[in-house]
Amino acid sequence: MSSIKEQFTAYIHQLQNEICSALEAVDGSARFQEDKWERQEGGGGITRVIEDGAVFEKGGVNTSVVHGKLPEAMMQNLSVSNANFYACGLSLVLHPYSPMVPTVHANFRYFELYDEQGNIADAWFGGGADLTPYYLFEEDGQHFHRTFKNSCDKHGAHFYPDFKKHCDNYFVNKHRNNERRGLGGIFFDYCRATQDFDLTQWMKFTMDMGNSFLPAYLPIAEKRKHLEYTPQQKDWQLYRRGRYVEFNLIHDRGTLFGLKTNGRIESILMSLPPVVKWKYNFAPEQDSAEEKLLRILQQPIEWA
Amino acid sequence: MSSIKEQFTAYIHQLQNEICSALEAVDGSARFQEDKWERQEGGGGITRVIEDGAVFEKGGVNTSVVHGKLPEAMMQNLSVSNANFYACGLSLVLHPYSPMVPTVHANFRYFELYDEQGNIADAWFGGGADLTPYYLFEEDGQHFHRTFKNSCDKHGAHFYPDFKKHCDNYFVNKHRNNERRGLGGIFFDYCRATQDFDLTQWMKFTMDMGNSFLPAYLPIAEKRKHLEYTPQQKDWQLYRRGRYVEFNLIHDRGTLFGLKTNGRIESILMSLPPVVKWKYNFAPEQDSAEEKLLRILQQPIEWA
Repeated sequence: MSSIKEQFTAYIHQLQNEICSALEAVDGSARFQEDKWERQEGGGGITRVIEDGAVFEKGGVNTSVVHGKLPEAMMQNLSVSNANFYACGLSLVLHPYSPMVPTVHANFRYFELYDEQGNIADAWFGGGADLTPYYLFEEDGQHFHRTFKNSCDKHGAHFYPDFKKHCDNYFVNKHRNNERRGLGGIFFDYCRATQDFDLTQWMKFTMDMGNSFLPAYLPIAEKRKHLEYTPQQKDWQLYRRGRYVEFNLIHDRGTLFGLKTNGRIESILMSLPPVVKWKYNFAPEQDSAEEKLLRILQQPIEWA
Repeated sequence: MSSIKEQFTAYIHQLQNEICSALEAVDGSARFQEDKWERQEGGGGITRVIEDGAVFEKGGVNTSVVHGKLPEAMMQNLSVSNANFYACGLSLVLHPYSPMVPTVHANFRYFELYDEQGNIADAWFGGGADLTPYYLFEEDGQHFHRTFKNSCDKHGAHFYPDFKKHCDNYFVNKHRNNERRGLGGIFFDYCRATQDFDLTQWMKFTMDMGNSFLPAYLPIAEKRKHLEYTPQQKDWQLYRRGRYVEFNLIHDRGTLFGLKTNGRIESILMSLPPVVKWKYNFAPEQDSAEEKLLRILQQPIEWA
């Protein structure tokens, strides 16, 4: 019987293969390019990037499995000293060409911390997925949220409402009057074993979330990828991508943490969009489709 | 006889007018659009933005004069409690269309802190200017640095070497293997009165630096604005602009401070370029002009 870390590590690699194959099929043109990298202090990763596709302008589906002595910045974060750790996860971001196809982000990860004897001192799962459309199709928001809700509900009734709220509260551009990055989804972190829910159950939960990504996102990409759009609608996407950059570089804990702990920069920053525009003080016209999106980003709603 | 804060406040507004007029003349097409804004807690600013010009794709030359109760984040920074403050400054960033014309940034500012009786408890000047080319013309780097060195030298022999070094050490993308943002320039901060150099002398120094901006930058813009360039060279500029965004959003104290202290977002983020590209793991060809620039950014040199 293999350990949780062995099982979950095998899982993320299998999920990476599955997601990349499915996305290549949707794209129909570009293929993922793979970069394997090693971390000097222990472990490494497999970065897979797709660029200039028919559907996807840029995207990455990365796995990393890193271990060794806990980096200084992580010690401070976790209030421990001189521990060894093991962390593995899958992280993906997709930026489609068309402003009608939403950007999507997901990640699923497991972390172990060891005591001086090498026994597990602490362990938890984390992850999530969130959808960032540029034009609002309400049925897409409903489909994305419902898919994750259905998977969550199998494990516990409070998971979806808790993790949906956590997501709404996390992907916020505080410096932009608390505007949300997108329609949210789910976000869970520091999911440790409890009396009612052990680590194996959290692993199964996290795997179920990982397995829900393709059913949650692919039908939306398929449905919207052939829609026509204007240069003005493309520009709107480019301005909104600016907000994506702002969130990732100013607020995202994962990104900033990766930079502080000497992570592989190109793998971390694959999340940044291929082309972005910043225009001074841009505001959409009143009652336009663009303004309708902004209202939803200002005030998250129930989708599922 | 007017106070230092009155004199310097009048100065930045006169400098703003002077710089905007000169830049409009160089551009020959676009005009600055002005937004006056008020700060709820006291003071406000004049934001002037130029977009879609013949030379300048986007740029801002902003002044702000703010005062009142010290914001929470500033109290922590300065280790004081419940003080009133007064801050005024000019800040500019210019992003030219052509990759042959460098991006430039400058700011000049004055800060006063008061005790409970309303007397000045602390006061200092700060500022600087730095040049970010996409293609290296050594004579441009020399001209920019020499102009500021000549102005510095009138006030003290150690100013230029100290402030040049400070600039080299400040505009660094630590997460990009300590790559500099550009060729540097000068950067000075917390310049308080000493026995040898009183606050009026610092004001005159700072004004001299402000007055050096146009002579330092305009001849470079004039000389390079008609050069031809290829789409590949334009793309290189767009990738490098990505580094500019990364520095401003991840590392720049001024930007992050503005966001924390509820500054006017659109005025703070006018520094972001109009169009930016991120390409996964892009590296220029060996011994190309692009690689030559990277070598200089990796290892700052003496220009003056």
